[in-house]
Amino acid sequence: MSLKEIAREAKDAFSSIQALSSEERDEALQLIFDELKTAKNQVLEANTLDMEAAEKLLAEGKMSKSMCKRLDLRVSEKYESMMQGVLDVKNLPDPLGHISYANKIDDGLELYRVSCAVGVLLVIFEARPEVVVNITSLAIKSGNAVILKGGKESTHSFDALSNVIRKALSKSKVPLDAVQLVHSRDEVSQLLQLDEYIDLVIPRGSDTLVKNIKNNTKIPVLGHSKGLCSVYVHEDADLDQAVKLVWDSKTNYPAACNAVETVLINQSVLESHFPAITKKLIDSGVEVRCDDASYAVAAKALPEAVASGKLKHSVVEDYDTEFSDLILCVKVVNSLSEAIQHINLHGSKHTDCIITTNEAAAKRFMTGVDAAGVYWNASTRFADGFRYGFGTEVGISTNKIHARGPMGLEGLTIYKYMLRGHGQIVGDYGVGPGKRSFKHEPLPAKHVSEL
Amino acid sequence: MSLKEIAREAKDAFSSIQALSSEERDEALQLIFDELKTAKNQVLEANTLDMEAAEKLLAEGKMSKSMCKRLDLRVSEKYESMMQGVLDVKNLPDPLGHISYANKIDDGLELYRVSCAVGVLLVIFEARPEVVVNITSLAIKSGNAVILKGGKESTHSFDALSNVIRKALSKSKVPLDAVQLVHSRDEVSQLLQLDEYIDLVIPRGSDTLVKNIKNNTKIPVLGHSKGLCSVYVHEDADLDQAVKLVWDSKTNYPAACNAVETVLINQSVLESHFPAITKKLIDSGVEVRCDDASYAVAAKALPEAVASGKLKHSVVEDYDTEFSDLILCVKVVNSLSEAIQHINLHGSKHTDCIITTNEAAAKRFMTGVDAAGVYWNASTRFADGFRYGFGTEVGISTNKIHARGPMGLEGLTIYKYMLRGHGQIVGDYGVGPGKRSFKHEPLPAKHVSEL
Repeated sequence: MSLKEIAREAKDAFSSIQALSSEERDEALQLIFDELKTAKNQVLEANTLDMEAAEKLLAEGKMSKSMCKRLDLRVSEKYESMMQGVLDVKNLPDPLGHISYANKIDDGLELYRVSCAVGVLLVIFEARPEVVVNITSLAIKSGNAVILKGGKESTHSFDALSNVIRKALSKSKVPLDAVQLVHSRDEVSQLLQLDEYIDLVIPRGSDTLVKNIKNNTKIPVLGHSKGLCSVYVHEDADLDQAVKLVWDSKTNYPAACNAVETVLINQSVLESHFPAITKKLIDSGVEVRCDDASYAVAAKALPEAVASGKLKHSVVEDYDTEFSDLILCVKVVNSLSEAIQHINLHGSKHTDCIITTNEAAAKRFMTGVDAAGVYWNASTRFADGFRYGFGTEVGISTNKIHARGPMGLEGLTIYKYMLRGHGQIVGDYGVGPGKRSFKHEPLPAKHVSEL
Repeated sequence: MSLKEIAREAKDAFSSIQALSSEERDEALQLIFDELKTAKNQVLEANTLDMEAAEKLLAEGKMSKSMCKRLDLRVSEKYESMMQGVLDVKNLPDPLGHISYANKIDDGLELYRVSCAVGVLLVIFEARPEVVVNITSLAIKSGNAVILKGGKESTHSFDALSNVIRKALSKSKVPLDAVQLVHSRDEVSQLLQLDEYIDLVIPRGSDTLVKNIKNNTKIPVLGHSKGLCSVYVHEDADLDQAVKLVWDSKTNYPAACNAVETVLINQSVLESHFPAITKKLIDSGVEVRCDDASYAVAAKALPEAVASGKLKHSVVEDYDTEFSDLILCVKVVNSLSEAIQHINLHGSKHTDCIITTNEAAAKRFMTGVDAAGVYWNASTRFADGFRYGFGTEVGISTNKIHARGPMGLEGLTIYKYMLRGHGQIVGDYGVGPGKRSFKHEPLPAKHVSEL
């Protein structure tokens, strides 16, 4: 089947799903859960093939340890938690049919804005095989069709999971072509041209992958390329909170996009707060790259950190770098405005935090910083769909339209305006004799099922 | 000033506006209204210069009559209604600061999703000079900065209006650079590259203009290229409604994007309904292009229409054409499914209508048609921000993300997640001894002013 055919089949499948009830979509998710349970051994055998190849590449230095780890579906409860994820999505409220605007335009002329699926999604990701299952669940729950493109490292796992999903869908009312899988890299560039059929691209992967996709398509792209988060230690920061929050934001999972990369500290608390912050970081193996002012204070307080090479001078590029590792850079600022300006210029609009006991300063920071997440006294690591209470996430968006921050089911929906009339024409409205005026009164309906 | 500087200034202006109150933004709108009142003669003199050039081009056949008409600010109440538009926008509720998700993650850890401005808008439009004032009002009200690029036909009017706006802003707290104007066509292609500073492009103009913009930028584009709306006359259509709705949808303003271009009619009401529908259209000067089945019925009933050349055979391209004129094409279908399929394949996802007294059929149509507006027994011409009750509109979007259909102030906003903690770190949550669980309880706040 050509890629154009795949995309057209996906579009047709999207049309068919629109006619299904919430129960019918949920039933498909239950069937996927059941099939995953039955096929566990098969899938893990396929994953073992991928892992053997990956371990060879690891030994040859051609694959990173962290990628190799992400590929592995066999560890502890990973398979079970993937399965549970399908049920978790199934148990979320239906995101479709909600009315967000209802207006009586005139007697017998009612307008409703109703949430509906976006259409055909193209999801491009790298290693993790379980993403196939996560994204499939979210797409079906939200009434979208999806074309999935995974990394070649996980080909066997990916095929096995795809077979499980197809088997489940064949028993459900969701058409088989609602979830399709493609492999080679060439296919991506061709799919990116099919804006007639594909409504939204969601890339999950490296900065390079995302940038490359954005440069090569007219289809809207939702996601994030870089995650450069900052924490600002304000002059009214509580010392214990500053130490704990910077430490957790950096070390809880340094490779995550919501880990902190830059710490800004106010001049007036440099002597009082910075040594303790630095000590805690360095004790956890973090390399701290400082501007001159912060280096002087830290080096004096922690000569052993200078000796061990963990305390360093920063270079200008550090303030535009997502380290994704146990490294962070530090800059001293003189004011809240300077901190906000630095973040808006160098940050990636992902998640930024102020540490302060001063409410007015916190409000100014949260209003002034242009980011998907603006935090007051909380770790940047909270930027996550599960922690936000969405159940799960499709990804995190640093876009400034449609969905921003962790994207759950709602990020996969849009709305349509439904107008119910009794033959009204526009020519009857306006000014002058015999013309009607609009009423524009709010209506109470909250769900399309009430209409 | 280079274009990059213009864009950077706009970004800075956006940051400054975030700190302003609703009252301060409204005050700027009042000042613009006042200055427009004072400068009426100056602006109309500038418009006369544009009109003189336009009339010359019109005489030489280099400009269309409709474009010439759109340029003219001097006719009847056009200037006053432009002025009134500024006050109308001022009087709308503030779109910023609304909370659409509020969740207690844990004791003392509260998450709010708060509406905020998108950033820097680039609005590209063709003739109408009053668009400068409309868009400026909407941008300021919603806390965005805007770079405006108008057509060269309206250069003088545009400069005059721009001076009025700058004079007004210089007396307000909104920075001057929040509204900037650029002229030449070259500038557009350069601006489209500045994705670092510009957050959203809104083109208002021809299909060619919009397509060209989409092909040349990584910045998200909101708007519509084509407006190909369809009306389906179902087998249970009321005859009078069918005649009136098709007629209004076509003739009320044929150049509008929400005018109907294709009429689908069910086989079973072809004999009973189609002659009257056609007669009413032809009496209003519409050219009706029919497929074989509908031609046979109409030609038999209306031999005079054949003689006058207003009743014609359609060609296959007609069903993909936005005529923007007193022309429409007709196709006979055998079922509701066939009508839905035709619309999803040939329509532009703008606005489509079913005429029927059958509720089940109407619901199937409104669920199955993938368009910004799905109508039941109402003219497609209702697709408009004012008629929808938004006060005014920035444009109409056929996009399937962010904003769809008429875009008012809400379409110019996005949200940010604000998290208010007391030093919570992610490492404290999870499973195991001493770990905390998330509470995820809804919170009641509806506006950021309540926090």
